[in-house]
Amino acid sequence: MTTIGLIGLGAMGGGMARSLRRAGHEVRVFDVRPEAAQAFADEGGTACASPAEVAAGCEVLVSVVVNAAQTEAVLFGASGAAAAMKPGSVFVMCSTVDPNWSIALEARLAALGILYIDAPISGGAAKAASGEMTMMTAATPEAYAKVGGLLDAMAAKVYRLGDRAGAGSKVKVINQLLAGVHIAAAAEAMALGLREGVDPAALYEVITHSAGNSWMFENRMAHVLAGDYTPLSAVDIFVKDLGLVLDVARASKFPLPLSSTAHQMFMQASTAGFAREDDSAVIKIFPGIELPGTTKSGD
Amino acid sequence: MTTIGLIGLGAMGGGMARSLRRAGHEVRVFDVRPEAAQAFADEGGTACASPAEVAAGCEVLVSVVVNAAQTEAVLFGASGAAAAMKPGSVFVMCSTVDPNWSIALEARLAALGILYIDAPISGGAAKAASGEMTMMTAATPEAYAKVGGLLDAMAAKVYRLGDRAGAGSKVKVINQLLAGVHIAAAAEAMALGLREGVDPAALYEVITHSAGNSWMFENRMAHVLAGDYTPLSAVDIFVKDLGLVLDVARASKFPLPLSSTAHQMFMQASTAGFAREDDSAVIKIFPGIELPGTTKSGD
Repeated sequence: MTTIGLIGLGAMGGGMARSLRRAGHEVRVFDVRPEAAQAFADEGGTACASPAEVAAGCEVLVSVVVNAAQTEAVLFGASGAAAAMKPGSVFVMCSTVDPNWSIALEARLAALGILYIDAPISGGAAKAASGEMTMMTAATPEAYAKVGGLLDAMAAKVYRLGDRAGAGSKVKVINQLLAGVHIAAAAEAMALGLREGVDPAALYEVITHSAGNSWMFENRMAHVLAGDYTPLSAVDIFVKDLGLVLDVARASKFPLPLSSTAHQMFMQASTAGFAREDDSAVIKIFPGIELPGTTKSGD
Repeated sequence: MTTIGLIGLGAMGGGMARSLRRAGHEVRVFDVRPEAAQAFADEGGTACASPAEVAAGCEVLVSVVVNAAQTEAVLFGASGAAAAMKPGSVFVMCSTVDPNWSIALEARLAALGILYIDAPISGGAAKAASGEMTMMTAATPEAYAKVGGLLDAMAAKVYRLGDRAGAGSKVKVINQLLAGVHIAAAAEAMALGLREGVDPAALYEVITHSAGNSWMFENRMAHVLAGDYTPLSAVDIFVKDLGLVLDVARASKFPLPLSSTAHQMFMQASTAGFAREDDSAVIKIFPGIELPGTTKSGD
């Protein structure tokens, strides 16, 4: 049994903290919403008042916040964790970030004697809760040795992609490229079907059994058929993530024609009023169609 | 046992003709390459010298040619089948075509007393040979009644999508939209990985187990990893099929941002010299990367 710190009790972090407790670890947590940390303390965890307070009581700190800016705040902001971490302890970075930023962070922490694991996660809230999500990691052998089996306590599949930071974030960014393009392509295909008068349920049935299928078509077009745009992951997440994909490529002047087109589609959906709807709401940018589960004006 | 006619003994048609014989039918065939028809006759089928000669001896005629222009030639060209078909017989159209052309063809044949099945196919040569391919069909109840179980003798899955022509070709075109965009997206993602120095085999392993996966990523990126661009389906097939997708949408002024971008990528690949390579060769349009299995100039 080890004491682990975890910062960020959102959809993913909350499930990961609970997976760590199920594996027998003591878990100290911080969240910007004190009530989220208190709820976790009520289950037997320990709520802390700042990242620094979490870090002072453990040698492995897992950060599950939204982006690089929040990770900077966790480490180097007011009552940040970096100054409170002991030399030889490990910082596990689970956000989707620019790989070059992650590579630089490894060096910044190394200067403080802190080990680092580049460890973006994938799989959604349900898999995080059951400990079945995926981690795409890269780290020095020393950092991997220090965390031992802790990563496996949080994820069903832990990919080890390199012996220093970078490859984990790169593979995660490329996964987001495909996920974003596939959601937008699924919307474009379903929209054309509606425009052409094809029965959308029949189209879904055929495509999910054909070579045109994708994980995202199968998952997200079920939301469109149900007319349910309750956000499991919102349109603005792909405005951010495809923006990150394009930033990475722009740094080496690398062209990404489909990613840039899909990014424009998500930005159009966001500014048209669907920013906080489910990302499948990107289909609402298509004109001249009536979506399932919606009613005509005046009905 | 029924006598069936089949025209076009290519990768798909050859397998379908053999599936029909395995099911106990007598099969009359024509192909523009007489040696293909003769090879089938050597197995026990009947080779004919023209579409009209095939049609004269049967009440169900299956056409498995490349496109609408070839289908026009089969029916209405020199020694074409239409004039030789008996009233009440059925023409089964298996090509990928503009749905509006297919709808019009049903009416043109009805004027001659000929029934029609809009029946594009999917699944590749191996599945055609084993009778396991998919058919996306639409037809009148009379046409379905006339062919009975013949469609099931050729395909493992026969989708019945409408009670007149159109929906079969529409769903097939939408499948091609997704297939084409997904191949181009897979190439874009793998190219970015190579640009960023990610191990391509590790990237393939992670993506095929993540939410970024598609049927096409899994299938086509295996060709890229192997450095094998032997055409199973060529770049120019998607120049044609995405062109068809865009034609369908243009007829109703419907925007398809990703399809048009992917179409440009396949046209770039075609004119850059990869027209007859495997469609995964669309990855060769990306600059500044070295593909697996290729050697640097001078090696």
